[in-house]
Amino acid sequence: MNFISDNTAGASSNVMAAIAAANDGTSSAYGTDLWTQGVERRFAEIFEREVAVFLVTSGTAANALALASSTRPWGAVLTHEESHVADDECGAPEFFSDGAKLIGLAGTGNKISPDLVTQALTRFREGALHQVQPQALSITQATECGTIYTLDEIRALKAAAAPRDLTLHMDGARFANALVTLGCSPAQMTWKAGVDLLSFGGTKNGAWAAEAVIFFDPAAAAEMKWRRKRAGQTLSKGRLIGAQFEGLLADGHWLDLARHANAMATKLATAIEKSGEARLAWPCQANAVFPILSASLHTRLKAAGVGFLAWSDRALPENMTLAQGEVVGRFVMSFATREEQVEQLIALIGA
Amino acid sequence: MNFISDNTAGASSNVMAAIAAANDGTSSAYGTDLWTQGVERRFAEIFEREVAVFLVTSGTAANALALASSTRPWGAVLTHEESHVADDECGAPEFFSDGAKLIGLAGTGNKISPDLVTQALTRFREGALHQVQPQALSITQATECGTIYTLDEIRALKAAAAPRDLTLHMDGARFANALVTLGCSPAQMTWKAGVDLLSFGGTKNGAWAAEAVIFFDPAAAAEMKWRRKRAGQTLSKGRLIGAQFEGLLADGHWLDLARHANAMATKLATAIEKSGEARLAWPCQANAVFPILSASLHTRLKAAGVGFLAWSDRALPENMTLAQGEVVGRFVMSFATREEQVEQLIALIGA
Amino acid sequence: MNFISDNTAGASSNVMAAIAAANDGTSSAYGTDLWTQGVERRFAEIFEREVAVFLVTSGTAANALALASSTRPWGAVLTHEESHVADDECGAPEFFSDGAKLIGLAGTGNKISPDLVTQALTRFREGALHQVQPQALSITQATECGTIYTLDEIRALKAAAAPRDLTLHMDGARFANALVTLGCSPAQMTWKAGVDLLSFGGTKNGAWAAEAVIFFDPAAAAEMKWRRKRAGQTLSKGRLIGAQFEGLLADGHWLDLARHANAMATKLATAIEKSGEARLAWPCQANAVFPILSASLHTRLKAAGVGFLAWSDRALPENMTLAQGEVVGRFVMSFATREEQVEQLIALIGA
Amino acid sequence: MNFISDNTAGASSNVMAAIAAANDGTSSAYGTDLWTQGVERRFAEIFEREVAVFLVTSGTAANALALASSTRPWGAVLTHEESHVADDECGAPEFFSDGAKLIGLAGTGNKISPDLVTQALTRFREGALHQVQPQALSITQATECGTIYTLDEIRALKAAAAPRDLTLHMDGARFANALVTLGCSPAQMTWKAGVDLLSFGGTKNGAWAAEAVIFFDPAAAAEMKWRRKRAGQTLSKGRLIGAQFEGLLADGHWLDLARHANAMATKLATAIEKSGEARLAWPCQANAVFPILSASLHTRLKAAGVGFLAWSDRALPENMTLAQGEVVGRFVMSFATREEQVEQLIALIGA
Repeated sequence: MNFISDNTAGASSNVMAAIAAANDGTSSAYGTDLWTQGVERRFAEIFEREVAVFLVTSGTAANALALASSTRPWGAVLTHEESHVADDECGAPEFFSDGAKLIGLAGTGNKISPDLVTQALTRFREGALHQVQPQALSITQATECGTIYTLDEIRALKAAAAPRDLTLHMDGARFANALVTLGCSPAQMTWKAGVDLLSFGGTKNGAWAAEAVIFFDPAAAAEMKWRRKRAGQTLSKGRLIGAQFEGLLADGHWLDLARHANAMATKLATAIEKSGEARLAWPCQANAVFPILSASLHTRLKAAGVGFLAWSDRALPENMTLAQGEVVGRFVMSFATREEQVEQLIALIGA
Repeated sequence: MNFISDNTAGASSNVMAAIAAANDGTSSAYGTDLWTQGVERRFAEIFEREVAVFLVTSGTAANALALASSTRPWGAVLTHEESHVADDECGAPEFFSDGAKLIGLAGTGNKISPDLVTQALTRFREGALHQVQPQALSITQATECGTIYTLDEIRALKAAAAPRDLTLHMDGARFANALVTLGCSPAQMTWKAGVDLLSFGGTKNGAWAAEAVIFFDPAAAAEMKWRRKRAGQTLSKGRLIGAQFEGLLADGHWLDLARHANAMATKLATAIEKSGEARLAWPCQANAVFPILSASLHTRLKAAGVGFLAWSDRALPENMTLAQGEVVGRFVMSFATREEQVEQLIALIGA
Repeated sequence: MNFISDNTAGASSNVMAAIAAANDGTSSAYGTDLWTQGVERRFAEIFEREVAVFLVTSGTAANALALASSTRPWGAVLTHEESHVADDECGAPEFFSDGAKLIGLAGTGNKISPDLVTQALTRFREGALHQVQPQALSITQATECGTIYTLDEIRALKAAAAPRDLTLHMDGARFANALVTLGCSPAQMTWKAGVDLLSFGGTKNGAWAAEAVIFFDPAAAAEMKWRRKRAGQTLSKGRLIGAQFEGLLADGHWLDLARHANAMATKLATAIEKSGEARLAWPCQANAVFPILSASLHTRLKAAGVGFLAWSDRALPENMTLAQGEVVGRFVMSFATREEQVEQLIALIGA
Repeated sequence: MNFISDNTAGASSNVMAAIAAANDGTSSAYGTDLWTQGVERRFAEIFEREVAVFLVTSGTAANALALASSTRPWGAVLTHEESHVADDECGAPEFFSDGAKLIGLAGTGNKISPDLVTQALTRFREGALHQVQPQALSITQATECGTIYTLDEIRALKAAAAPRDLTLHMDGARFANALVTLGCSPAQMTWKAGVDLLSFGGTKNGAWAAEAVIFFDPAAAAEMKWRRKRAGQTLSKGRLIGAQFEGLLADGHWLDLARHANAMATKLATAIEKSGEARLAWPCQANAVFPILSASLHTRLKAAGVGFLAWSDRALPENMTLAQGEVVGRFVMSFATREEQVEQLIALIGA
């Protein structure tokens, strides 16, 4: 049983079929192929507007390219102090942006509040010579703690960012998981709520290696083709990514996959809460569950060979503290997680 | 008929089968999977020594990471003035190396001569404060003109680079094509001849997107894992690349694919030379043919819908000049090129 | 009355005289002149050991070059969250280091505690692929809040940094002010306490534009000449900086200047404390005083035309909070501050 | 006798006097002082138009900041292959521009011809994905070979650069020397001839360390304050540079200094040509003389202790070649060169 991450699975069978189908004949290279072009149109439909789309192979690349597109080297990105861009990309945003600074804000469940954005904008004065200049706000949807911003919360963050005209970037590595929970349209969760720039994640959703940087203002993407190229992210056989997205996006497959993963997480979370064996660090709103494990439960699960991670406790709610030996466990479900695995885990945890 | 590049084909069926086979079950992420580890061992066998291997998704990324690993930001890379790293990667080596300089050397058929290396090392004085310091020499095997360095030539370049201890990097985007022509072992064409660092190309050879940076001195790779990670080139589902290489490298498949591509090129080159319809800009030594096309032949082929590129004439032999209207045509063969396509082309050119 | 900063004065008359004296005849360029060489020897005497010395024109350049010398682009620098390198250099350390990350630690009076260093090193795990790697610890002596690390405190920070072998950098923009307070030797306050790398400040001390990066391990400076050169910090007429330092360092002039500035600050601080008109945010340990000004006192001083800054309250002691309208005022003394100015200010504040 | 460079002298007495005069009282910092502001106005008068002015301490910094302001990281700068920015700044333009490429063009006497600009623009196709994009053209006035572009030549270069809207940058490290030769106005030699961006050199002209980046389109300078700051080039005691320029620019002092240096060079060049002891590599048009020295003359001058450099012969006129043992000597005159020194040298060379 491996609940370590939603990147431990392979690709969904639809994605594999789409790759196989794309493997015939010759095609023009470097993203000028029919698959990539089709995906670009598909995204325009999904988001109900013209968009500029750049396919890449990793979420780190997508995020770093997006942030580099929206900040100058002396700019700054406001983000949660434990967001993926801040903590898990080994400085990729700094590298791609030629040295911009990431300013970490606190927040329960890795969610940023508008107040802290406002406060940071006060601290980094507009036009001040000696300080980096905030130019983007990056949020993760769903967050690294499995929580979700509501549409109102996104709008409120946009409003907080507005006085300084920050680009609102959404790291959507788990975009689909958040979307199916909110039950809104992709447009509502993004540009209609103020998002300017999106890292759309295909990999955790069910692809092998397929991410997209999506500009809701295509004019802002004018230089992106060079930025991506010189980052080594412009595949010559670009249809590999195009085909993955084709397989993913056709007939709502991506949403089905996300619904399955979320359902597995909900099943686990509900069982844990009912059992009283552990309390949840954060509400389960997407495809991950974060129970606080007692030392004995932690040991028991490890002994049983269950794959999961111990997670940071920095973003716990203010009134929640870990007792001696307690650990925040992270269990992530993917499209490939099977219900019987979840049931086995539930049994182990212990009803 | 598409002879535009060896990146217009998809992947070989063995590669596709390997990907499909790798798609079962869960696997650890970020290159710690069994496929990637197997490939690392496979490369050690192929090169008959311990190596450090880093899989990435594009040739540009492989080259840029390799060059960044061997130069300081105030360093310089000697390379042919029309090499891929110098001319076709939109400044990726400069980006990844934080600003190192590429110093372009002339040379027929994109091959560098030891004399020009020596001359450049004289011009950029050792230890000089005001000048960038040459730290690497990058050659392409086979070159962008379809030519090949002999083992003696590689050794002579190494000797020319030795007084300043330059890292010898080989851009092996078409490594297999060169290897089967020389008929030597991978070890002979690389570290035994003085190569320190190799970009091993899988994509043009028959994969989708699979390249490897190979350090023949594993100690030199100590920091590479961070360098690759922050470049967004460490795939979470790393087995995608691992599996492609597994498919490619098993049972000499990669060499078979290269032999086929080379044979197709030789067939075309031989026919052209025999026909007298065009002369070759450079000898056909790998999988590409560069006939000098008269204006009328050029027009005729375009009209027939043949896909090919007009190529730069900067690296023509000294005694060869283009007549009015003449164009250097580039016809590249891949593993997927079918013999009847070549025959059709030969017929069009015109016996 | 201008107490805004210790950079609002010009240069001391000794410094001016040294520049004038250096202005005769020709001299070799780019730091190979006799003045610069003399200063290098002078620093070796001052620090009682061999050192590598690099003169530059600004404190920002000195700090950024020093930090770039001790971190890789994927490295991190632990520093106080409101240190000059973190907050007042517009991202220069990120620029010079090609994207290293500055990790801000909290601490009263801008002083870092060893515990927070240890905690940060736990958070950024050694060798972890996804995280930047802490490689330097940067402290400011005296701090931006006018406080000072004792020798024991420096040694304790070194000990906290030792398990990960962090380079200990000291931003000594106000080195002399700290030194005369501690009454120890320059060697004791630096390498004997564990400091590896020093930004030695001449400008605030009494020069025009003279800073030095000092490596206590000369071997670590092997590449610094290129790093400084390509940063545009290698003056052709290098004796300009050499002469300033010559003037400053001769006959303990630098220490005399610092003693004067500190005495002026102590006079003000003592008077304020005695008067009861304001409490001090932090103890006055160098050449700056930070009284917490009531709204009315703040207004009164501004109206009287006194030059001073309102300062951040983030580093206040835990038990100290600002009442409504209160402001932390910053009053900085320099070598050129005249006693009667301080007395005037004291009178205004209000005995 | 030191003719090694025009940076071996100190500062003119007017410059020294201006620094001394500026040393009284307090002043606001970071370039907001009255001296800097006065210089900004002075430049507006000199150039007969509104300009944005940024003072820095080295020519390398001025050039690198100027080029970084006019290119994107994937941009390219066309320049002479042996220009100072290409060959003598240790990669500073690449560093400051985050990796832009300098494309070296050949040309006698380090002067670029419009034809080669046009040819380079053909080679680097507009909008091409794989190639860096030319965005600036940088010329040196006077060149490193002591030659000068006429106004017509500058206009022709601007015309060649126009189809791609390249920023025309002039490295004016020896601006005054060129200006007094041409006898035109500063406006005529710059923006009226098409120059967009100027590195105005004060150091070689007679200052200690005073250079200015001048934007003829102030709107293009919007971000320059941050770029300069994070490069460590914003001096806190900015009046040091302001005062140097004040001393230099008052009452045509800068032009007098340049006229003297040029006259010394002309005297030497004329004597050499008359004597027949050596031929000149390039015409003497500014403050430097480049005689081709026979082996015996070379030895004789070295033995006599004359300071001069052996120079590159790459930019010799096509019909001029060096005989065995011949060396291109470089003799540079400064404001401080005394006529009797030149006469001594002339005597040594041998009339």
